[in-house]
Amino acid sequence: MPSNLPVDADRLWDDIMALAAITDPEKPYTRRSFSALFLKGREWLARRFAEAGLEVRIDAAGNLIGRREGAERGLKPILLGSHSDTVPSGGRFDGIAGVIAALETSRSLKEAGAVLRHPLEVVDFLAEEPSEYGLSCVGSRGMAGVLDPSMLALKNPGGEPLADALRRVGGDPTRVAGAKREDVAAFLELHIEQGVLLESEGADVGVVTSIAGIRRMEIAFEGEADHAGTTPMGLRRDALVAAARTVDSVRRAAEALAAQGGDYFVATVGVLDVSPSASNVVPGRCRLIVDARYTSAEMIRSFADRIDRESADNAIAARVTRTAFAVLSDGPPAACDSGLRTEMRAAAQRLGLSARDLASGAGHDAAFITRVCPAAMIFTPCRAGKSHAPEEWADRDALASGAAVMFETVRTIDRTM
Amino acid sequence: MPSNLPVDADRLWDDIMALAAITDPEKPYTRRSFSALFLKGREWLARRFAEAGLEVRIDAAGNLIGRREGAERGLKPILLGSHSDTVPSGGRFDGIAGVIAALETSRSLKEAGAVLRHPLEVVDFLAEEPSEYGLSCVGSRGMAGVLDPSMLALKNPGGEPLADALRRVGGDPTRVAGAKREDVAAFLELHIEQGVLLESEGADVGVVTSIAGIRRMEIAFEGEADHAGTTPMGLRRDALVAAARTVDSVRRAAEALAAQGGDYFVATVGVLDVSPSASNVVPGRCRLIVDARYTSAEMIRSFADRIDRESADNAIAARVTRTAFAVLSDGPPAACDSGLRTEMRAAAQRLGLSARDLASGAGHDAAFITRVCPAAMIFTPCRAGKSHAPEEWADRDALASGAAVMFETVRTIDRTM
Repeated sequence: MPSNLPVDADRLWDDIMALAAITDPEKPYTRRSFSALFLKGREWLARRFAEAGLEVRIDAAGNLIGRREGAERGLKPILLGSHSDTVPSGGRFDGIAGVIAALETSRSLKEAGAVLRHPLEVVDFLAEEPSEYGLSCVGSRGMAGVLDPSMLALKNPGGEPLADALRRVGGDPTRVAGAKREDVAAFLELHIEQGVLLESEGADVGVVTSIAGIRRMEIAFEGEADHAGTTPMGLRRDALVAAARTVDSVRRAAEALAAQGGDYFVATVGVLDVSPSASNVVPGRCRLIVDARYTSAEMIRSFADRIDRESADNAIAARVTRTAFAVLSDGPPAACDSGLRTEMRAAAQRLGLSARDLASGAGHDAAFITRVCPAAMIFTPCRAGKSHAPEEWADRDALASGAAVMFETVRTIDRTM
Repeated sequence: MPSNLPVDADRLWDDIMALAAITDPEKPYTRRSFSALFLKGREWLARRFAEAGLEVRIDAAGNLIGRREGAERGLKPILLGSHSDTVPSGGRFDGIAGVIAALETSRSLKEAGAVLRHPLEVVDFLAEEPSEYGLSCVGSRGMAGVLDPSMLALKNPGGEPLADALRRVGGDPTRVAGAKREDVAAFLELHIEQGVLLESEGADVGVVTSIAGIRRMEIAFEGEADHAGTTPMGLRRDALVAAARTVDSVRRAAEALAAQGGDYFVATVGVLDVSPSASNVVPGRCRLIVDARYTSAEMIRSFADRIDRESADNAIAARVTRTAFAVLSDGPPAACDSGLRTEMRAAAQRLGLSARDLASGAGHDAAFITRVCPAAMIFTPCRAGKSHAPEEWADRDALASGAAVMFETVRTIDRTM
């Protein structure tokens, strides 16, 4: 890493650690969206935003925004940020690093005497992680104008609707349509990779080409819950046999698509429920959930077709009925802006940092913001790809390198956009 | 069915229905061992035993026994019976039919003026079904002398030890060794088949050749619970992939062994637990339970070897560790006495009933009593093989035919033994 980065690596690190320390002490690192700890974290953040000379507000979708006006009237703001909420027992960097890197960029620009033509906004998006209300990316959905009334009616296990929770954090459910932004020039988000590519190749930063689409599918089988001792093999209608073979189908299909290269593809069966789940009863019902991540529409189509065909064949072979083959949700892939990516690669080169293009298999707020304006992401390496766990780790210098690329890119696009 | 059976089909039926009616009204048909309803059922049974001229007692292992002395001094008793407890939401026949058929045999013999040389005992074994204390066949284990002190220390979810529960139903945990019988001439048990062989072949009764052994094995895999979006296919250590392929291994191995014929073999994976069981996390740990039923030691050895080999291969292919490959329990197969089986087939022929040899895939009290004396089982057809469910059904005439074979067999062995 070059020694003369245009950001303050220590201040960046110390602020990440300070925000991460606002955690449930029993379950580090936990700062769930809408919780008292989350509000405490935001209080701290708002203070830091203000200390950096940003004017702080919360929009109707609950996003915490700090803004500094630009030198030229009438230009759209450049937006930087990520999210401060965590999964339960998550890490210190996922989201947090992006919010603080955005703050650090704004501070360093100011200290460098850089007067931007555009306004600059630093954002902490509300509830990027799947929240208690069954929804992720609440704030970035709101900014993209796709936070529907039906979503605001979602309830947490305690019965509180998301609309009320939004009010608690300073949003306004009655004016959520007003959170939609059409006035943004560009958006940049820094995030830890949550994968091993950058680390394994020794790259300083990653330039995200696109954020993978996520399709979730439910496949269910129904057979007959017979006596495990008295039902001959030839008369069984074992739902688990069909489900287990479909797990294998998913694995093989995903391996074949991933091996084609070019585009990103992974698929997982993370949930497989067996009923009645007794050692002496042939499983009568099974349900599995397939999670597929893709950047190519052709690949996901081919995958879904193959799994449709093979799961139907698996049902027939096990003499069971396939009672469900349904898409639960499908968020299409979001391409990062190629102009911004070019500037990010150039910025890295000027800084003496090695950069690598890569797709993001995880979802991010940036995916929704691609609907608002040109958007792009900077990835920083993280140890062994671990994320959503207390051992999540990113090096101080790696984070500073990513923030420096953000700094440089903002300077460039402020001139050219 | 012949019209002149030596038992009273209506009385047999009515008593089965009367005992079955002593059920939890919310959850027919439920009469769990050790419950108040179970004791109510036994009160009714003891009265019916007494009305049939049997002398009623409860042994130290909690078995309800009715006895009539024989004409010749010094002969060992002939024992008939089954169990009156049920699984939750079970049926009206499993166990019950066998207790009442034994009672009906003793009544019909008496009414026919048959004076037996041997004493005759009718038994309702305690807690054949898996009880709240995690143990099945409590009473027949006691009679076989294998109800260990460690078993008496088992507790139900409320914390009551089995020893105390045994006391509640009239047994004596301090004298349980005394329940061991060495004085029995022969044992016969009638039971519904709980399978479809007799029904599908139109056979009147089944002559059980052996009661399958039950081996339960636990297989567990441990990989890495990684992010389902960011972990490339080639870097995954997915425990479910190994487990799912092992489900397929079990199915194929069992099918191959069952197809060899001669001996009985079935195997089931009824339990498969996935951890952490989240749609967006690669499964880090999986555990499955294999339930194998067998009558041939060679077959179970070959099965266990193949599953050992294939599950180890499945672990390697999925880059996970096989953390468990363990036998949880193994009850060896129990052969029914060939002399008794010959007499049962001859009895059926005399009665004009068709009989078919078959193995029992389910466990029964008779399996433990084979350790005490020559023992055998008569199966009666049941509709669609359904058991352990409210829709469990056996026809009145089918039950009478089975009881008639018991009647005839007792008459014969009383002369010859």
